[in-house]
Amino acid sequence: MFQAAAKTLSVASTSSVSRAILFSLRHYCKKTPTKLRVSEALSGAELGENVKVQGWVRSVRPQKANLFIHVSDGSSLQPLQIIAGSELNDPLLTFGSAIEVTGILKKSPHQKQPVELEADRVRVVGECNPVDFPFKIKERHGLEYIRQFPHLRCRTNAFSSLLRIRSEATTAIHSYFKDNGFMQIHTPIITSNDCEGAGELFQVEPSGPVHEEDEHFFSVPAFLTVSGQLHLEVMSGAFSRVYTFGPTFRAENSQSRRHLAEFYMVEAEVSFTESLEDLTKVMEDMFRSATEHVLAHCAEDVDLFHKHVTPGHRDTLDAMVKKRFPVITYSEAIDILNSSSQKFTFPTYWGCDLQTEHEKYLVKHCGNIPVFVTDYPYDLKPFYARDNQDHPEHTAAAVDLLVPGVGELCGGSLREERLDLLSARLQEVGLEDTYSWYLDLRRFGSVPHGGFGLGFERYLQCILGVDNIKDVIPFPRFSHSCLL
Amino acid sequence: MFQAAAKTLSVASTSSVSRAILFSLRHYCKKTPTKLRVSEALSGAELGENVKVQGWVRSVRPQKANLFIHVSDGSSLQPLQIIAGSELNDPLLTFGSAIEVTGILKKSPHQKQPVELEADRVRVVGECNPVDFPFKIKERHGLEYIRQFPHLRCRTNAFSSLLRIRSEATTAIHSYFKDNGFMQIHTPIITSNDCEGAGELFQVEPSGPVHEEDEHFFSVPAFLTVSGQLHLEVMSGAFSRVYTFGPTFRAENSQSRRHLAEFYMVEAEVSFTESLEDLTKVMEDMFRSATEHVLAHCAEDVDLFHKHVTPGHRDTLDAMVKKRFPVITYSEAIDILNSSSQKFTFPTYWGCDLQTEHEKYLVKHCGNIPVFVTDYPYDLKPFYARDNQDHPEHTAAAVDLLVPGVGELCGGSLREERLDLLSARLQEVGLEDTYSWYLDLRRFGSVPHGGFGLGFERYLQCILGVDNIKDVIPFPRFSHSCLL
Repeated sequence: MFQAAAKTLSVASTSSVSRAILFSLRHYCKKTPTKLRVSEALSGAELGENVKVQGWVRSVRPQKANLFIHVSDGSSLQPLQIIAGSELNDPLLTFGSAIEVTGILKKSPHQKQPVELEADRVRVVGECNPVDFPFKIKERHGLEYIRQFPHLRCRTNAFSSLLRIRSEATTAIHSYFKDNGFMQIHTPIITSNDCEGAGELFQVEPSGPVHEEDEHFFSVPAFLTVSGQLHLEVMSGAFSRVYTFGPTFRAENSQSRRHLAEFYMVEAEVSFTESLEDLTKVMEDMFRSATEHVLAHCAEDVDLFHKHVTPGHRDTLDAMVKKRFPVITYSEAIDILNSSSQKFTFPTYWGCDLQTEHEKYLVKHCGNIPVFVTDYPYDLKPFYARDNQDHPEHTAAAVDLLVPGVGELCGGSLREERLDLLSARLQEVGLEDTYSWYLDLRRFGSVPHGGFGLGFERYLQCILGVDNIKDVIPFPRFSHSCLL
Repeated sequence: MFQAAAKTLSVASTSSVSRAILFSLRHYCKKTPTKLRVSEALSGAELGENVKVQGWVRSVRPQKANLFIHVSDGSSLQPLQIIAGSELNDPLLTFGSAIEVTGILKKSPHQKQPVELEADRVRVVGECNPVDFPFKIKERHGLEYIRQFPHLRCRTNAFSSLLRIRSEATTAIHSYFKDNGFMQIHTPIITSNDCEGAGELFQVEPSGPVHEEDEHFFSVPAFLTVSGQLHLEVMSGAFSRVYTFGPTFRAENSQSRRHLAEFYMVEAEVSFTESLEDLTKVMEDMFRSATEHVLAHCAEDVDLFHKHVTPGHRDTLDAMVKKRFPVITYSEAIDILNSSSQKFTFPTYWGCDLQTEHEKYLVKHCGNIPVFVTDYPYDLKPFYARDNQDHPEHTAAAVDLLVPGVGELCGGSLREERLDLLSARLQEVGLEDTYSWYLDLRRFGSVPHGGFGLGFERYLQCILGVDNIKDVIPFPRFSHSCLL
């Protein structure tokens, strides 16, 4: 309001009267400072202006004449430095307390920060008792320690960085798909399908008194989704490019560093495919596009991880982004493993499932960058994988993307679009009736198509080098743990 | 490749030799046509070029010398018109079949479409038996009819339009929050909280043999989330603006037009609030921003609804976007209802809960545009709502946004940030131990904050005028129904 009024005045003649008005407007303005987020203040947007900043105290350093406070509001890793006269000191100004500061935003004489806020007022909005607060000033707590406080860990530097990276990576993935003509589909969470036929499902019923076996809320048994693939395939009969990005579930009785009961998957389906290359191109482009976006928009946050949490990982990541991902067939992978001098826990032979140890070896063998493995044995893959109809090695047009540190990041396949072959296979496994609707998709305007899924938490582990999957999701759920 | 080569040539002297090369390159190019999506073709991107388009047949009109085919690939409501010599006709070219067409993209002489594809080849990729296919050519099937075929309804014009609108509205909402400094949080689906204390929860356990009562997978009873609010509040202790957009659940035994067991919610929390206005501003801005985005990016799709599905709704929507949303207090609302001549099923008095009939009346009373109702009776609101500490009418700083046709679209409140008040209330309802972690948020750097939730399906109903909530979600789940 002041700016508009001032503009009008400067257009009019600057008589002594208008100057007096201008002065009182400036005075008024000083009383209603512009509210700024820390990231906005740091960008120098309102240099020289009277501003108000609100956030949480990261550090307090009282010196002779002045008090130096670092305040953060989550909009950036870098805090804003506040300089206040020591008369503004307050015993409640402790690490973690919430404050509101007004003052003039000035260029900083120090190299470390572009601006600082010369405070004329510092108000403690919410106290934080430093004895009870589990995080201590200037201490770098380990990821394992902060994991014990799921309701507070976002207040640490490391976890707030993780959350900014996660949010930005989410945006990047949505942007990639939008820019490339994919339509977003909200595939259902509750489903009557068991997509992979893999067991390890969560079942869903209303809470309260135990229901009789045949008295289901949905009339049929209902489960939490393990994949949105089949529902995406429904959509890929009308839209040539679709994707979904949401939570998926596995009732795995594991507390490992690699598994969660609830995790996020990015899944895409492409219609009118010609070969697996139509899928590997999307996977590689998406990986590169998302990673470049994160590196460009969260440079400081990523640096925090690469410097303090996972030193040395930056070189690995740079190589991943720069180099093209090699493609090897499953048969070539088996040859590589068989001629390795490394002793594996699980034996390798044509037809064996690749274990994490094998996947990690293959990644190292290929130069410690992501590698595609294609054309897996037909019998290892679910009913929907497209039959390559090759002999004597019978394979399916399936592909996995293996990445450093993590192993399998993506899994995908061309889908069997031929009604006769699909129908025969479903009959073989006794699922023809259950999936009659799925066969319908092949009866009416079927097209060659394929898709893949990417484990979003594994993606974050891969780019940050974080070892434990529980450290890259806001509220980890796993066997025997569902905090909050 | 061709373009680069041709450019090089045009820079070099155009001798007869290079002209010959150019000719054969052009010939080569004709053999490998550019793959285009229908929306790209319609935009006239490759006019005069040899292109390939793939999609599903919407209509076939054989005339004397020519065959007219409309093909769609989901990238737009408008199909691409194909003109083919009648010798390219094929009995398999039926409504719903999948085809691949190559030819030259030309300006169309007809007003209805900007371009048309003069085909030199039409190949049927996937047949579609018109007798068995439940949708018939040129017929406008009702939403209720197509709902019976959840695996095929995306192939109708109406539902493919709905899905494009839904995808675009999702993008718009994410953009609004990103542009306004909100960070996205993936709040958990499985939770040990019962946020509203409202009952009607789904419980989650691994499928398979019945477990003993005290043998939970997560060690504690676990439920599907009814709201991400409390988890967002965790984050709003470190980030001043956060939001989540994901599925939520209610085990309501209802098959009404208004309820689903699984639906999407947009929820936001804002820290350092001063009054309810900080929330109503975000709600109103988001509504307007998302709606304008949808109207700009899905004009044809929205028109289909407003012309054929819900005639007359466009005027209602235009008024919603243009006018500021009025704000009335709950007490004013009760006065309005009490002085109404309309007979309500549920009686109205200060302290009563507003029913849908009341909400719809208030919306009509305020000019059939969205209206905010604020400051509800304290006793009607959950434990976290901020006490207004007013007398004699004891209210909480809560707000609902009521909209035409739907009733409640958003509900929100300032949250009780004062430890003593919150602690006393939790003690009153016997939940102090359960929510000791929530009290921690007030112990350590508590700030005035508030938030709201918006029902995404209701939002879509509101802008499109669609009566039944099952028609605005890809796979509706409700009591006795979980198809696919």
